[in-house]
Amino acid sequence: MDYGVEVLKRTSLTQAACPVARSLDAIGDRWSLLIVRDAFDGISRFGEFRRSLGIAKGMLTARLHDLVECGVLETAPASDGSAYQDYLLTEKGRALFPVVVALRQWGQDHLYAPGEQHSVLVDVATGSPVEKLELRSADGKALGWSDTRVRKL
Amino acid sequence: MDYGVEVLKRTSLTQAACPVARSLDAIGDRWSLLIVRDAFDGISRFGEFRRSLGIAKGMLTARLHDLVECGVLETAPASDGSAYQDYLLTEKGRALFPVVVALRQWGQDHLYAPGEQHSVLVDVATGSPVEKLELRSADGKALGWSDTRVRKL
Repeated sequence: MDYGVEVLKRTSLTQAACPVARSLDAIGDRWSLLIVRDAFDGISRFGEFRRSLGIAKGMLTARLHDLVECGVLETAPASDGSAYQDYLLTEKGRALFPVVVALRQWGQDHLYAPGEQHSVLVDVATGSPVEKLELRSADGKALGWSDTRVRKL
Repeated sequence: MDYGVEVLKRTSLTQAACPVARSLDAIGDRWSLLIVRDAFDGISRFGEFRRSLGIAKGMLTARLHDLVECGVLETAPASDGSAYQDYLLTEKGRALFPVVVALRQWGQDHLYAPGEQHSVLVDVATGSPVEKLELRSADGKALGWSDTRVRKL
């Protein structure tokens, strides 16, 4: 196999006609999505993200900057009046909830040994685990991947 | 800001108690998920992935290797009897369908200008676009992110 250096003729994902590609261009690395996950869990401070993720300072600074730049996070003066700033999910950022849930559910089903413990997403009202995400057709049928196709431009 | 080199004390995501973290450790880069997306679209050959993604050969080789290693793809002799091999989604790989759909739906809603065209996921049976993924509670309520919490270990 050829591992040699070559000129990379990468399609610009920012301009892609495929929404999956464009999404991955915006948030497609593990740190970005783990930061978003932590933000859903209520984390908002640089130091808290750093402790939660064990991520290098420079990397965290860069990822937070990118997430603010693309409108997933916004900064606000610290809610406690201190000199820190909070990083908060915008509406666009909160809309990533199904992405994080889908990753969680796949991981639960496929990356743990039988009986191995993991955190669980529960309904606040009842404490019961949530259901699996399910894709449905316009007329309400459950759809698997083979029931769908991508209509290209 | 400190962009200096520092020792990275990264939590091992492979062993994380959070299924989101473990999933991102397995498939958390844009290329892995774009390869999976292409596999859902029926692409199976090295050369086809390469043309579709405009990815460097060495990078594609490495990503395909990792995806086979973690059980998302499997190799098979080419279906046409040629010397090539096919990369096919395993059951574990096909289970990533909701992840790809969630990324698609977020991208559609948040990364295109009004009126800008993109590919669309449709129901094969009717040709109609699929519905938005929706998270539901055990008793059937639609749940937003603030209706849920993560029960840690």
